[in-house]
Amino acid sequence: MTNPSLIRRNNHARGAGTAKAARPPGKRDRNRQSAEVKLAELRRRLLEINDLGAAGALLAWDHATYMPAGGAPARARQGATLRRLAHEKSVDPALGRLIDELQPRADSLAHGAASLIRVARRDFEKAVKVPPDYVARANTLGSASYDAWTRARPANDFPAMVPYLEEMLDLSREYAGFFAPYEHVADPLIDDADEGMTTASVRRLFGALARELVPIVRAISEQPPADDRCLRGKFAEAAQLDFSRAVVERMGYDFTRGRLDTTHHPFCTKFSAGDVRITTRVYAGDIGQALFSTLHEAGHALYEQGVGAALEGTPLGSGVSAGVHESQSRLWENQIGRSAGFWRHFYPRLQRAFPDQFAGVTLDAFYRAINKVEHSLIRTDADEVTYNLHIMLRFELELELLEARLAVKHLPEAWREAMQAHLGLVPPDDRDGCLQDVHWYAGGIGGAFHSYTLGNILSAQFHVAAVKAHPQIPQEIERGEFGMLRAWLTERVYQHGRTYTPNELIEQATGEPMSMRPYIAYLRAKYGELYRLPPAPRG
Amino acid sequence: MTNPSLIRRNNHARGAGTAKAARPPGKRDRNRQSAEVKLAELRRRLLEINDLGAAGALLAWDHATYMPAGGAPARARQGATLRRLAHEKSVDPALGRLIDELQPRADSLAHGAASLIRVARRDFEKAVKVPPDYVARANTLGSASYDAWTRARPANDFPAMVPYLEEMLDLSREYAGFFAPYEHVADPLIDDADEGMTTASVRRLFGALARELVPIVRAISEQPPADDRCLRGKFAEAAQLDFSRAVVERMGYDFTRGRLDTTHHPFCTKFSAGDVRITTRVYAGDIGQALFSTLHEAGHALYEQGVGAALEGTPLGSGVSAGVHESQSRLWENQIGRSAGFWRHFYPRLQRAFPDQFAGVTLDAFYRAINKVEHSLIRTDADEVTYNLHIMLRFELELELLEARLAVKHLPEAWREAMQAHLGLVPPDDRDGCLQDVHWYAGGIGGAFHSYTLGNILSAQFHVAAVKAHPQIPQEIERGEFGMLRAWLTERVYQHGRTYTPNELIEQATGEPMSMRPYIAYLRAKYGELYRLPPAPRG
Repeated sequence: MTNPSLIRRNNHARGAGTAKAARPPGKRDRNRQSAEVKLAELRRRLLEINDLGAAGALLAWDHATYMPAGGAPARARQGATLRRLAHEKSVDPALGRLIDELQPRADSLAHGAASLIRVARRDFEKAVKVPPDYVARANTLGSASYDAWTRARPANDFPAMVPYLEEMLDLSREYAGFFAPYEHVADPLIDDADEGMTTASVRRLFGALARELVPIVRAISEQPPADDRCLRGKFAEAAQLDFSRAVVERMGYDFTRGRLDTTHHPFCTKFSAGDVRITTRVYAGDIGQALFSTLHEAGHALYEQGVGAALEGTPLGSGVSAGVHESQSRLWENQIGRSAGFWRHFYPRLQRAFPDQFAGVTLDAFYRAINKVEHSLIRTDADEVTYNLHIMLRFELELELLEARLAVKHLPEAWREAMQAHLGLVPPDDRDGCLQDVHWYAGGIGGAFHSYTLGNILSAQFHVAAVKAHPQIPQEIERGEFGMLRAWLTERVYQHGRTYTPNELIEQATGEPMSMRPYIAYLRAKYGELYRLPPAPRG
Repeated sequence: MTNPSLIRRNNHARGAGTAKAARPPGKRDRNRQSAEVKLAELRRRLLEINDLGAAGALLAWDHATYMPAGGAPARARQGATLRRLAHEKSVDPALGRLIDELQPRADSLAHGAASLIRVARRDFEKAVKVPPDYVARANTLGSASYDAWTRARPANDFPAMVPYLEEMLDLSREYAGFFAPYEHVADPLIDDADEGMTTASVRRLFGALARELVPIVRAISEQPPADDRCLRGKFAEAAQLDFSRAVVERMGYDFTRGRLDTTHHPFCTKFSAGDVRITTRVYAGDIGQALFSTLHEAGHALYEQGVGAALEGTPLGSGVSAGVHESQSRLWENQIGRSAGFWRHFYPRLQRAFPDQFAGVTLDAFYRAINKVEHSLIRTDADEVTYNLHIMLRFELELELLEARLAVKHLPEAWREAMQAHLGLVPPDDRDGCLQDVHWYAGGIGGAFHSYTLGNILSAQFHVAAVKAHPQIPQEIERGEFGMLRAWLTERVYQHGRTYTPNELIEQATGEPMSMRPYIAYLRAKYGELYRLPPAPRG
C-alpha cells in the first residue's frame, strides 16, 4: 500500500512559479546563454529540494523497518525538520522568479526543459499558497492524531478520535481554501493527487462504475462461494519471503536498485532511481498476504525503477499521479498476479516451495481461491471486484464531511449505513468500521481514496493496450517471462515520469482518455467464467 | 572503529560565535527575559543543525548496512547536500550574534546555559573560519580519494594514490591555515579531535609512553609466543552474533535504544539519545573479530547512550572528544573484555555456544589466546600492547608529511623504515603497509590517529578511578554484573556529554590530569603475569 497522504506531502515538497511579466527579450544569443545558466540554477535548486525529500523518505523507511523504539521521538522531529527545510526551499521567491524568467524561453532550451518548467511551476504554485504556519500545524496534528489512532483503533474507541478528526476536517477545508476559488471543496485535494481530476469527474466515473459493478457483485453473490481454505494454514515465513522475492525478481524488480523488507504496513519508497525499496508483511496463517502485497508494491517499484535516468533527481523523476501509480501496483498484483496464465508458470514452483500445503490442490482450485469474491468488512482484504465499493463509500463520506452534510460524531452511523447499502453487511464495531484506515486520521480528509479506484480502472486500460500492441504477452507470461509487457510499460508509461500530464500520458499510451470499459470488460470476462455468470447485457 | 574523520566532520557541523562587544546592560529583568528568548532561539538553531547531522548519519549508516549498490551515486550527493546545509546553518552570522549577545549573561541563565554557549562558540568559531568553498573541495576530494583507495589498496597500487594524497596534504595544511597562528601546523587538526591537546603535548606523551612500552614489548618478545589457535576454526556466524549481542546487552547496551548490524568496518553512530547503533563484522574463521569489535563499539555506544537526557539534540549531547570516546571503547573492549574476571563469567557460556571448538580449551588457555602479544603488520589486528606503536609511527609520519620533511612519494619507504624501527618487521607490500588505513585517504592528514592512544591511556585511568571508588567492581564483573562500573562511568563521564572540556572532565572524574601511569601499571601487571616478565624497575 502506498500511503496517498505521503504522496501528497511529497508533491508539496516539490518546486513551480508565480506568474509575473517576463523581461523583454534582448539579443537572442545572450538570452539563450543566460537562460541556460538559469536552467542550471533551477535544476540545482530543485535537486536540493529532491535530496531533502529523499533523506526524509529514508528516515521514514528506517522508522518502519529497523529503528529501535527509543528512536521515535527524535525521528519525528528530524523528519519534520527536513520537511520544513524542503518547504522553505520550495517556496523561495527566487525559485519562482527563475521559473517566471525561464517560462517564455522554455522551447528554445534543451529537450525536456519545457516539461521541467511546467511541473516546477505547478509544484511551486501549490507550495507557495500553503503558509508555513499551516504546514507546521498540519504536521503536528497529523503526528498526534496518527499516534492517537494507533491506540484508538485496537480499543475500538471512536469517540477518542472525534476531536482529532474534527480538527483534521477543518485543516482539510482550510487547505482547500488556499486554492479558492474552486467548484467543490474537495477539488484542490483531488488535484494534488491526480492532476486534471475533479470532484465532478470522479463522481461521474464512480457513478457509472457503480452501475456496472453492482449487478456483477450481485450475480456473483448468488453463486456458491469460492473455497479459499488452501490459502490458510501454516506457511513458514522465510519460505514465503523467498518465494515472493523470486517472483518479483522474475517480474523485473531490480534488487541491485532496491530491496524487500517486512513492515507492519507494506509500502514502496524511493530515494533515487538506483534505490527504490519495497516492504511486505508476512502472515504465517495466510499466504495471500505476503504474496499479493509484494506483487502490489513491486508494481509501484517497477514504475519508479523504470523512470528515465535523465529525469533522476528532478521533479519529473517520479510517477505522474496517484491514480497512474496505483494502476501499476494493480496491474502487477491483479491483472497479472491473479491471472490463470501467471500461475500456470508459478504454481508448480509454489507447490515445490510448500509441498505439504499444495500437493493436493489443483491449479484451478488455487486460481479460484486467490480470486474469491466476497462481501467483507476490511478494504485492504477485499477482492478486486468489491474493493471499489469500499472506495466509493469512503469517497462519498469524505464529500459529506467536507460539505458539512455529515458531522464527524455521526460518522460511525453513516459508515454502517453506507456499508449496508454498498456491501450488504454491517461492521460489528468501529475498529473494523470507520476506524480501519489510517488515511483520514493521519493525512486529512479528502483526496485520499479515489486514486485506488482510478488505479483499478487504469490497470485494465494499460494492460489491454499492451496486449493489443503485443498479442504474444499472455503466452510470454505463461512462460514466466515479462520482458515484452515491461518494455511496453516502460516505453509508454514508466520512462516519462511526470513529463506529461496524467491525461496526456494515458491518452498517448492507450490511444484514448481514461475509460472504464476495459476494466468492466476484464471483470465480466474473468468473473463471468469463474462464477459462471450469465452473459453481459449488450449495449 | 570510529572513523575520526567523521567525528571531526561532526564537530564542524556544530555551532559557537565571533567575539564582539556585548550590548551595555539595560534593566535587569527585561534583559533576563530577552536573554531567555535568545537562548531558546539559540537552542532552536542548534537543534536544526543537529537534526541535519543526524539525518546525514542515518544516510551513512544505511549506506554501510542495507543500501543496494545502485543507491550509491545519489546517496553520496544527498549526504553532501545535508552536510552543506548543516554547514550553512552553522556559520550563519545570526547564530554568531546570538552567541555574542548571550555570552555576558550566560551565568544568569538556566543551569547548563554557560556550557552550551561555550561549546556553541567553539563550534561556531571553528566553522566560520572554514570557507564553504573549502568544505566543498574537501568533500569532493575526500569522496574521490576514498573511492580510489578502495581500488588501490587491493591492487597494492600506492602510486595511484600519490596525487590524491598530495592534494589531501595540501588541504590539511590549508585547513590548519584557517586557524593560524599556531605553534605547529598539526595543532588545529589535533584540537578538532581533542580540545586542549597540541602537537607538543601529544609528542611529549608519546615519547614518555614509548620509553615505557618498548622495554615491555621487548621483554614479551623474548618469551615463548602465546598460542591463539583456539580462536581460529569454523564458528557459525549467526551464533557469533548471538553471543556478542548477549554479552553487550549484559554490559548494559540498551537494545531498545540501539541495534547491532554487520558491516565491512565496524562503527558506532548516533541519531539521537534514543537511537545509538553499532555494527560489527563476523569472520567464520576468527571468533575474535566479531567478539571484540562488538565490545569496542558497544563501549562507544554506552558512552552515547549515557549522555544526560537534558542534553539531547544540543551540541552538548555527545561524547566530549575523540580521545575520551576511544577510552570508552577501549575500556569495555580491553580493560574489561580481555580481563580474566570477565571471562570467568562468560567463558562457560562461550563454551556452551561453541562446544565443538572450546570443550577442550581451558579458561586460562583462552585468556592467554585473547591477550596474545605479537609484532604484526596491521594496526586494527594489533594487540593492546603493540597497538600504540602502530599509532606512534603514524603520528610521526603525519608530522613529517605536514612539516614537508617527507614527500608523499617517499611514504612507502618511510613506512617500512618506521615499521622496522618500531615493530621490528617490514610489510611485504604497501597494501599491508602505508595503504592499510583509510584515514589519510578519506579524511586528510593529521589529527586522525593520536586519539586512539589517548583512548588507551585514559581507559586505564578511568578504570582505576572507578575501582578505587568501588572496590567491589571486579567481583561484580566476575558475576557478569556491570551496574556499579556503568553507574560510576555514567555519573563521572557519560552524563556530562560536552558540558566540561576534556581536561576538566578527566580531572573531575579521576582526580588528576591525563596520566599514563595507570595504563603502564595495567600493562606491566597484566602482561607481567601473562608472560612471566621480570618485575618493573622501581622509579
